[in-house]
Amino acid sequence: MKKHIISYLLIGLMLGCATPKEEQVVSDVVHGNESEINSLNEVYLDSWNDAAKSKITTWVEAVTNSSSSSFIPEEDRIAVFDNDGTLWSEQPIYFQVAFAIDEIKRMAPDHPEWSTQAPFKPLLEGDIAGFLAGGEKALGTLLATTHTGMTTEEFDKRVKSWMQTATHPVTGKHYNEMIYQPMLELLGYLRANGFKTFIVSGGGVDFMRAWTEEAYGIPPYQVVGSLSGMSYEMEGDTPVLNKLPELYFNDDKAGKPVGISRSIGKRPVFAGGNSDGDYEMLQYTSTGSGERFGMFIHHTDSVREYAYDRDSHIGRLNKGLDDAQKYNWMIVDMAKDWKVIYPYQMK
Amino acid sequence: MKKHIISYLLIGLMLGCATPKEEQVVSDVVHGNESEINSLNEVYLDSWNDAAKSKITTWVEAVTNSSSSSFIPEEDRIAVFDNDGTLWSEQPIYFQVAFAIDEIKRMAPDHPEWSTQAPFKPLLEGDIAGFLAGGEKALGTLLATTHTGMTTEEFDKRVKSWMQTATHPVTGKHYNEMIYQPMLELLGYLRANGFKTFIVSGGGVDFMRAWTEEAYGIPPYQVVGSLSGMSYEMEGDTPVLNKLPELYFNDDKAGKPVGISRSIGKRPVFAGGNSDGDYEMLQYTSTGSGERFGMFIHHTDSVREYAYDRDSHIGRLNKGLDDAQKYNWMIVDMAKDWKVIYPYQMK
Repeated sequence: MKKHIISYLLIGLMLGCATPKEEQVVSDVVHGNESEINSLNEVYLDSWNDAAKSKITTWVEAVTNSSSSSFIPEEDRIAVFDNDGTLWSEQPIYFQVAFAIDEIKRMAPDHPEWSTQAPFKPLLEGDIAGFLAGGEKALGTLLATTHTGMTTEEFDKRVKSWMQTATHPVTGKHYNEMIYQPMLELLGYLRANGFKTFIVSGGGVDFMRAWTEEAYGIPPYQVVGSLSGMSYEMEGDTPVLNKLPELYFNDDKAGKPVGISRSIGKRPVFAGGNSDGDYEMLQYTSTGSGERFGMFIHHTDSVREYAYDRDSHIGRLNKGLDDAQKYNWMIVDMAKDWKVIYPYQMK
Repeated sequence: MKKHIISYLLIGLMLGCATPKEEQVVSDVVHGNESEINSLNEVYLDSWNDAAKSKITTWVEAVTNSSSSSFIPEEDRIAVFDNDGTLWSEQPIYFQVAFAIDEIKRMAPDHPEWSTQAPFKPLLEGDIAGFLAGGEKALGTLLATTHTGMTTEEFDKRVKSWMQTATHPVTGKHYNEMIYQPMLELLGYLRANGFKTFIVSGGGVDFMRAWTEEAYGIPPYQVVGSLSGMSYEMEGDTPVLNKLPELYFNDDKAGKPVGISRSIGKRPVFAGGNSDGDYEMLQYTSTGSGERFGMFIHHTDSVREYAYDRDSHIGRLNKGLDDAQKYNWMIVDMAKDWKVIYPYQMK
């Protein structure tokens, strides 16, 4: 039921045709009536335990209060989020890599030569350790083979098809079911308070856009990611965009502030990440003038999700923990701060 | 007065807090009540003569009518516009080049060596022909000298400062006053009908973002343009984004559909341009499935603006005119179709 209430409010916000009661709530959000905002917090941040929730709401209430010295005008309310490990899970391997491996298996019947070639042989035999021994070169070949040499439209179809059929090896759920319920609520809460929400991820932008609008309510033009080469060509009378094998832009680490500048053009005031790949994005956000909010999701929940940080090969969080106090970053303890992890766990 | 009405309606659309009368109008726009939409056309496309206006409104009314076979869902209503010569003037030289030349003059006292060096010497002597004789190399040096080797924030300040002081050699107006009133109305009309409006220009993205939000109501994250190299670096404790001399991406010709794919991630349904540099953008737009609208602004008005097309060095329109019928592109005749050119000509 609550999901419908949220949707209705958001539609109301967008269309400007709310009924009187919703209109009052929407108006209160926009204009900063505190008591009504508090009741909306209950809707939007339901899956957050109180201590963590209040850190977020205290900040948002301050920066959206036009009579506060912390006020941030609506046009500057830019919020950026990493994707892997921040908005959805990333273990035991990045889901985009899981897609690539599944694609190799799907394509293998047309490529009998792969049964003896690296890096395909170990992948087809389920030998992930053997594949990883091939290092960056093996990963590069895997991504080039499965992500390029086709049009953007063909690639989009492949990702959508995979998302509907593939399942996670541990939960048995579709990958797009393994998004974080508390982060969905945070995205909605920020948007209801006038923020624009963006994804800024090391993941491939075309891979993400195939499903992020449906999953997070974030449209394609608010998704920033890594880029492959691309060419515009005519196939007869039909123009196509072909994905080319080279990596054109790596939207990770120091690349994230660059990607933000190029694609968004404003310095964010709110940033959420979970690994040292997000360090520079949070640093760039938190060192701007005025009020800023930086947040690292700390994977502490070995029972409901995964527990990893300083020594992990995937999503290593080391420098981010060291410098959290220096930059006033919130460390979200998934085990303690989140009532549920995934939407399918909601009652 | 009309400008205030438009602003009020747009604010109402965004905030969902319209008064009952405006709410009805807004709701009618969203839900497609034809008689009310016609009255809004009067507000939004006032500077268009009837024949041209009706080509636009007929199409928009069809694609926003949910019971029409031409209907386009709101999330797919992506409209893209070139900037130079499409949203503002571009003669006698691209305004960004005028900025660069003015910057050379401003910086010259700190560079006495420029008085004998190409391409600075001809520029400082007002010898544009001599500068142009240096070809692409001269232009590259001009742009690298004035657009890179500084932080994004410093560059933004320089553009804003120039925009407040510099004036056009013919009209004597500030450059941001030389935007096209009919196109402002078209942008507003499309947005009121659920379209997202984007700029997709060969111009530098940082140059445009310094003023396009105020001029057109288009926020920085909806501006796609050419990109320089960029690095994220620490200056002491302060992170900065430095603009580097190399051209990283040229958002022109076949680069425009690539820029659209990378930054917007959806194929547009409406595209407006004015030169063959926009040909591929209009072609990519018009060859998609479903209803599409392509428009070339044809510079036919030697009295109120400039007249140029097939043989011009700036904004050449040749292939676009040849193929307009093939792709069903509207050719806007500025002299015949527009009642006024610039906002300052409004009564």
